[in-house]
Amino acid sequence: MGPETATSAARGVAPPTGRRNRDADVVAAAINVFWRKGYADASVQDLADEVGVLKGSLYHYIESKEALLMRVFDLAHEQAQETIDYAAALDVPPLERVRRYFERHVRWYLDNIEHASVFFREWRSLTGPNLQTVKRRRRSYARFIGGMIEECRLAGATAPGVDSRIVLVYVLSAVNAAPDWYRREGPDDAGTIAAAYADFVVGTLVGAA
Amino acid sequence: MGPETATSAARGVAPPTGRRNRDADVVAAAINVFWRKGYADASVQDLADEVGVLKGSLYHYIESKEALLMRVFDLAHEQAQETIDYAAALDVPPLERVRRYFERHVRWYLDNIEHASVFFREWRSLTGPNLQTVKRRRRSYARFIGGMIEECRLAGATAPGVDSRIVLVYVLSAVNAAPDWYRREGPDDAGTIAAAYADFVVGTLVGAA
Repeated sequence: MGPETATSAARGVAPPTGRRNRDADVVAAAINVFWRKGYADASVQDLADEVGVLKGSLYHYIESKEALLMRVFDLAHEQAQETIDYAAALDVPPLERVRRYFERHVRWYLDNIEHASVFFREWRSLTGPNLQTVKRRRRSYARFIGGMIEECRLAGATAPGVDSRIVLVYVLSAVNAAPDWYRREGPDDAGTIAAAYADFVVGTLVGAA
Repeated sequence: MGPETATSAARGVAPPTGRRNRDADVVAAAINVFWRKGYADASVQDLADEVGVLKGSLYHYIESKEALLMRVFDLAHEQAQETIDYAAALDVPPLERVRRYFERHVRWYLDNIEHASVFFREWRSLTGPNLQTVKRRRRSYARFIGGMIEECRLAGATAPGVDSRIVLVYVLSAVNAAPDWYRREGPDDAGTIAAAYADFVVGTLVGAA
């Protein structure tokens, strides 16, 4: 918020947040269109229609279709990073950190099915430095989760002989499929599933007693 | 084995198993081609090339590309049914039945990555009665596994409050992704992964002690 903000607001013109809101609208529209049609089949015209602007106007907000896809990934990354920061800051035993991390993580997926689905389906549609960035981020999420699991193992909280690497793949496979099968109109609310999944992850680590 | 068989063998011509072997070769070739190119992009010419016969000859063995895809599914079904029959016949406690079932089930996936991948990716390519048959079979696998889990719950062997329906989805998501990430040239042999996964499934059910 600088002096310009105050001036614009005083003049009663669109506040500078207008631009930010429109940016957010464009990213939200992109998530819906990429989810419905797939990135390859989505046209800039489809995106303009979804936002409700002329195609020419959309180019004020995006440089290219891929730049827009990358903003969808940037937003997912910001939100994933918030969950990581939350879990990292908890002062709790290692298994409880895992449980709370996965409860939030799965909750985000279920509250953002379209966004999460685009994230899982379309990362291969990115190219060059964008693809490298997204791959690097995915490795860093896996490293964080793997680190939490390893912390459990070192604390003696996991089943004897658990291989952190293999259990990581099992758990991520289970959790990452949640946006594929979960239906908002189904019998279970997102909170119930997120809590159940978090318990399952802990159970997977602790193993049969 | 009828009289014709004996006669053919006596004459020294190709034994009747020749036809069956060729059928098996055609299904094996179909798995490879559908796995490499995807069903939609695979042509009958590609299939003929893979088998090593002229395209015209291939029509002795298949009626259509979809009929061939269905034979890929029929073979997977036979083998899935063998694992189910094996587990159903075991005289062991319910959790041990689950463990042994999943050890075989995952082992089949890892020993048949291409076949399992075609099974998961291409069932939507089937149409009409074929699609209905495959959907019915998938429901019956899920019912069998769900029944084993429910048997564990009723025996008091699962974590308190476990929802059999939700845990079934979690476990199947984890297990069904195995052919996607497993690499034969990787550090772990199929037997190690299958045993670890079977333990993870049991751990998921038993939960944190």
